[in-house]
Amino acid sequence: MRPYSSPSEPATPAAPAGLFDGVLARGAVREVMGDRAWLGALLSVEAALARSLADVGAVPAGAAVAIAAAADRMDLNTDLIADLSAAAAASGNPVVALVERLRSAVPPEAAGYVHMGATSQDIMDTAAMLLADRARDALRGDLRAAADAAAALAREHRDTPMAARTLLQQAVPTTFGLKAAGWCVGLDEVSARLATVRLPAQLGGAAGTLAGLDPEAGARLAAQLGLASRVLPWHTTRTPIADLAGALGGVAGVVGKVARDVVLLAQSEVAEVAEGKPGGSSAMAHKRNPVAAVSALAGSIQAPGLVASLLASMPQEHERAAGAWHAEWRPLRELLIATGSAASWLRECLAHLQVDGAAMRANLDRLLRTLGASEPDVGFAPALVDRVLTDRGGAA
Amino acid sequence: MRPYSSPSEPATPAAPAGLFDGVLARGAVREVMGDRAWLGALLSVEAALARSLADVGAVPAGAAVAIAAAADRMDLNTDLIADLSAAAAASGNPVVALVERLRSAVPPEAAGYVHMGATSQDIMDTAAMLLADRARDALRGDLRAAADAAAALAREHRDTPMAARTLLQQAVPTTFGLKAAGWCVGLDEVSARLATVRLPAQLGGAAGTLAGLDPEAGARLAAQLGLASRVLPWHTTRTPIADLAGALGGVAGVVGKVARDVVLLAQSEVAEVAEGKPGGSSAMAHKRNPVAAVSALAGSIQAPGLVASLLASMPQEHERAAGAWHAEWRPLRELLIATGSAASWLRECLAHLQVDGAAMRANLDRLLRTLGASEPDVGFAPALVDRVLTDRGGAA
Amino acid sequence: MRPYSSPSEPATPAAPAGLFDGVLARGAVREVMGDRAWLGALLSVEAALARSLADVGAVPAGAAVAIAAAADRMDLNTDLIADLSAAAAASGNPVVALVERLRSAVPPEAAGYVHMGATSQDIMDTAAMLLADRARDALRGDLRAAADAAAALAREHRDTPMAARTLLQQAVPTTFGLKAAGWCVGLDEVSARLATVRLPAQLGGAAGTLAGLDPEAGARLAAQLGLASRVLPWHTTRTPIADLAGALGGVAGVVGKVARDVVLLAQSEVAEVAEGKPGGSSAMAHKRNPVAAVSALAGSIQAPGLVASLLASMPQEHERAAGAWHAEWRPLRELLIATGSAASWLRECLAHLQVDGAAMRANLDRLLRTLGASEPDVGFAPALVDRVLTDRGGAA
Amino acid sequence: MRPYSSPSEPATPAAPAGLFDGVLARGAVREVMGDRAWLGALLSVEAALARSLADVGAVPAGAAVAIAAAADRMDLNTDLIADLSAAAAASGNPVVALVERLRSAVPPEAAGYVHMGATSQDIMDTAAMLLADRARDALRGDLRAAADAAAALAREHRDTPMAARTLLQQAVPTTFGLKAAGWCVGLDEVSARLATVRLPAQLGGAAGTLAGLDPEAGARLAAQLGLASRVLPWHTTRTPIADLAGALGGVAGVVGKVARDVVLLAQSEVAEVAEGKPGGSSAMAHKRNPVAAVSALAGSIQAPGLVASLLASMPQEHERAAGAWHAEWRPLRELLIATGSAASWLRECLAHLQVDGAAMRANLDRLLRTLGASEPDVGFAPALVDRVLTDRGGAA
Repeated sequence: MRPYSSPSEPATPAAPAGLFDGVLARGAVREVMGDRAWLGALLSVEAALARSLADVGAVPAGAAVAIAAAADRMDLNTDLIADLSAAAAASGNPVVALVERLRSAVPPEAAGYVHMGATSQDIMDTAAMLLADRARDALRGDLRAAADAAAALAREHRDTPMAARTLLQQAVPTTFGLKAAGWCVGLDEVSARLATVRLPAQLGGAAGTLAGLDPEAGARLAAQLGLASRVLPWHTTRTPIADLAGALGGVAGVVGKVARDVVLLAQSEVAEVAEGKPGGSSAMAHKRNPVAAVSALAGSIQAPGLVASLLASMPQEHERAAGAWHAEWRPLRELLIATGSAASWLRECLAHLQVDGAAMRANLDRLLRTLGASEPDVGFAPALVDRVLTDRGGAA
Repeated sequence: MRPYSSPSEPATPAAPAGLFDGVLARGAVREVMGDRAWLGALLSVEAALARSLADVGAVPAGAAVAIAAAADRMDLNTDLIADLSAAAAASGNPVVALVERLRSAVPPEAAGYVHMGATSQDIMDTAAMLLADRARDALRGDLRAAADAAAALAREHRDTPMAARTLLQQAVPTTFGLKAAGWCVGLDEVSARLATVRLPAQLGGAAGTLAGLDPEAGARLAAQLGLASRVLPWHTTRTPIADLAGALGGVAGVVGKVARDVVLLAQSEVAEVAEGKPGGSSAMAHKRNPVAAVSALAGSIQAPGLVASLLASMPQEHERAAGAWHAEWRPLRELLIATGSAASWLRECLAHLQVDGAAMRANLDRLLRTLGASEPDVGFAPALVDRVLTDRGGAA
Repeated sequence: MRPYSSPSEPATPAAPAGLFDGVLARGAVREVMGDRAWLGALLSVEAALARSLADVGAVPAGAAVAIAAAADRMDLNTDLIADLSAAAAASGNPVVALVERLRSAVPPEAAGYVHMGATSQDIMDTAAMLLADRARDALRGDLRAAADAAAALAREHRDTPMAARTLLQQAVPTTFGLKAAGWCVGLDEVSARLATVRLPAQLGGAAGTLAGLDPEAGARLAAQLGLASRVLPWHTTRTPIADLAGALGGVAGVVGKVARDVVLLAQSEVAEVAEGKPGGSSAMAHKRNPVAAVSALAGSIQAPGLVASLLASMPQEHERAAGAWHAEWRPLRELLIATGSAASWLRECLAHLQVDGAAMRANLDRLLRTLGASEPDVGFAPALVDRVLTDRGGAA
Repeated sequence: MRPYSSPSEPATPAAPAGLFDGVLARGAVREVMGDRAWLGALLSVEAALARSLADVGAVPAGAAVAIAAAADRMDLNTDLIADLSAAAAASGNPVVALVERLRSAVPPEAAGYVHMGATSQDIMDTAAMLLADRARDALRGDLRAAADAAAALAREHRDTPMAARTLLQQAVPTTFGLKAAGWCVGLDEVSARLATVRLPAQLGGAAGTLAGLDPEAGARLAAQLGLASRVLPWHTTRTPIADLAGALGGVAGVVGKVARDVVLLAQSEVAEVAEGKPGGSSAMAHKRNPVAAVSALAGSIQAPGLVASLLASMPQEHERAAGAWHAEWRPLRELLIATGSAASWLRECLAHLQVDGAAMRANLDRLLRTLGASEPDVGFAPALVDRVLTDRGGAA
């Protein structure tokens, strides 16, 4: 069986990166959501289906083993992908042709047990959830690392005074620690929210009645694959997709907020932070572009429209949608990639962020003069930093 | 204190409905999100703030009482709303002028304690959460009633055979009970999801440092108002808005799915269901338009774009956004109204839905002839209905 | 006849502003798109329809006069609006009940000619186009004024050197004149684009076949109302809505670009521009918030989601949509208001913008030192300003 | 020079299709927007830039020839794409590294003239416009063919009576010819709208001042590449992108409308049309799925969210955006592919659509009985068909 346990050890050689992927598809999610990974996941689901049906006695154990072995042996190459893509144009999805391939790869006595009782959407949706789960792990890893970096900044700069800015005008003093603590809390929140999204297996057969299946097969399939189980098939009740999309929208929004702050603080005229590995410019050698934050923003900005596409696909007709289901595939992939790339870039950005406390103080002094104050009153900023760090389980 | 406990007893006379509200703003949410309700909520927050600060000893108890009394006495009329709107054009929000009014309505010795330590956004955001909480109650009431109606349909038609349709083609048999059970599960899921959204009070002062406030004041304010508490102010970390928006997007999607099914089943050529109170047509007396389902769809379709607007507003600058915060106000209201209206219409639709089992059978017979079957094989459809009803705690 | 010629002289007393309207619904569009204006437009269309049919001999001239007179006399008060809204809940739109009112307000012999041959959507869509046309005039007036202000800034500061900024980093020199010329060109482009949108009358009868009408009636109705004419009714082919939405999205985007530049230039640490009437802050007397630019951004940010809602409503079923048509009403209103408000705020912002050439030079000097340059090389910036001003027909 | 004249003769071997491309990326646009085509376009722009500068005497003619030859020779393979992608992660875009490659591929005396005066965004944006222009040609070809097929259906079925349906209820009679004529007009409208979008070359240098360039270079570059010319660079004034996005949104909406009608007419219970090559189902051999219309809808549904993403990217900062520019790349590609695929599928659908006039009549008879009519009154439906066909320049 092609394993799904480890995002860091892809089962297949990495696909070459696309032209924009270096900027817009950073991190692990691109690979996780690539065509080979999709194909591998489809085969894993077919194998798990056979085993699940074997568990309930509907399929001979030997046939299930043979099916899983054939699935594992299949060469997930570019030609196969193109062939399935072409065949999908006739049937509406790539599973029909893949099942034919799998049937011809098992002993004749097992062929009839391949894909037994299932409909193409069962396999596609379950594979999508498998991939989404794996992408979520990668994404949450980057969010956690970004939040940890923010927490470290908060701790280090707990008392570093700077100007708080409202409507981009200097307002009153705060500390950089509190700003970084705010980033940390936001990143932790969206990661925790993402973790609560239930990603269920799908198994309903042609019209969700489980005809030709077993009432327990769905739960067993879910258990085999480490996915959630749902009381009914969700062929046209797309709550898992909606919930995932909403959570990813929140992730992108918080990542965008932090990245925007970094970009603003890195402005030439503010110069309170700089990226550790700023990008150069072909024409302007003196520039220190905050490329990581800019790239994080680029990912973030794409998310709301993709969330809207997925939500707009929800009112699906009867027992299988006439278009709205197919309409999910690319936006779901794009949303995971855009959000994953943004999180990966933000992790990079915060891990190496250089903070210039003296510049903060110099900018703040202008405000203090305006306010007629000699020393900054940062309110309870340091105490709030402590509260956040304590909440996270670390020492303040 | 203006009470927020009961959506069914508004504290102020109802605002007259707008021209499209009968169709697009059905149910309780329009009133809950109206200008008077907003104004009442702003005043409730100012009163609760004073009491919270009195609790921690920062404000004299008598001043808090005076402030709450003045807030309660204020006449929330159209002229006041227009005055505050005009004043908001200068300061960027209506709170500044409202605070001036409130100060002039309390005894001189209490005036200095009005709005003490708070920033306008503290009041606006907390009021928004109060209103969202109340709108959520109304919305969940409608979702529950719609789900109950679907459950009743599922129970009654547990074994009523009909054609399942995939890509709008007759596919295999199912039962109407299973279809209705699917509606029920989806509605329950999005209602449960909506219930998990945390709606926190906001109290941070000018830049979120709690300068001039008390570290405990935020938690007390939240407790006073029955809202959640958050470790830090969320002036520019808009996770509560994102989470609410995502959940509402899911609600709208499921409501749209059910309404679309009803509209399709009510087609002249299908005629398997009819609305109990179908709408007439000025020109065509014979028509029985499924007005409730159509209006539910009309609400549902508006949601994804509004969710996108709210998510796109998330990357807010520094300690107060330069536009993106203001950009939330109308979309949040519109999203709650559109979704609330859709849910209210769907409740009406399902509560009176007329099901024609004979028509279902007649349509199914065509499929059975094509399949060469004499009796429909509905798989485990009835058992799945039982499972759903049992899960809900009702007898199967 | 209720006149539609002059946005500055509304036919009815102004509706009181809503709580957020001062910030989010500035300018003429709110009134133009208000309920009273809608009602007036619906009546104007009914009157024009009668006259059009009289022109082709299908309605007695006297009846047309009586209908127009009754339409003109009707009192567009709040109660009427609420009554129509309530009635709309039954029929799906407010026209059915309005027609009944109109019929009862004309002499018996004219009653049968009211709304003759038309369907509710004919009246609603044509009224929407009337209002959109009027809103467009107001919006283009604000865009023109904003562009003129930008052109004046470009002329005045043709040679004022400043730092160009890429990725918010100082890059190379430019002039403020070129930046302002860029604003001007963008504003002119989206205004010109908006002017090309064809806003057609709608007249097709119950199903678009013109049954009971006259093949020429549509063109006459369009001519009566100063609207475009289309070869076929567009009940479910929503190209005019899509085209309008797309153009408004472009307007909002350019307004947002200019406003964002202003906000960034007005930052405390940059301080190269200031608004002529900056907003105060309740808590921070020293602040000079760029309220106009911020409010323009607030309007701009709402547009993309609303455009998406309108585009998502396009795939309308058969001869009248089951929900997607109703779903247009609020987003279209909101989109016009948000974009109109943004343009109005930007006009205000640019008309009073204060430019600090010395601050620009001081910030630029830092860049020049980095570059090792003594004088700024602004390339062809002044010549490009001249080119823009000449293109606009003004002297360079 | 890599030619851009002929969409049917790609300069490079076709990229293998992705797993979902058979369904979601049909037709010519996928290839046109692929990585190799992007790379080829970038090189074409560099070559055209050198020639343009040679025209104005800023580059020796021989150097321009050498640059164009080197660009033409470069092997656009997968490894090069991956290398540029990786390099782009450092600089923010793939042009920086591509320019280095190109410089090393020309004689030393020409190296200094490669990319002279340009900024990366000049090359990227101009290449995007080249590709968009080519994609537009392909897309308009499919729209034209689909409209022609609709016109043929309108002509053939000018008088074929059927039931018009409003809110999916049978309403009054119409003809299928009028329905098809409505499709035709919508498709022609959006194609014509798309043709009006101006796709300009981009040439401004580092900050849009043309420093190091020539004031005429931009117009010459545009002329070389067959693109439009704009009075100023549009680095951060994204009107061309907005206009293209809006037009594509309209295309997708009309395609979706037609496809939805087909899907509804093809329902088992309606059965008035069928696709010429309907798709099978793995599980259900009797099904005749309208795969082409379903796939067209799948493309269409993705568009509004992508349009929103592009519009939301418009407020770009100063002289080069900090993220919003990069955020356009994937959504623009996805929008063109989704819309192009939808149009290609619709062309296929309409070209082979089978119309069952007898079924239309049978369904209509039910309505006539309800109406108590013996013969259908189709109003002016046939005359409207004639009008449409005449307008298109064909004989009625």
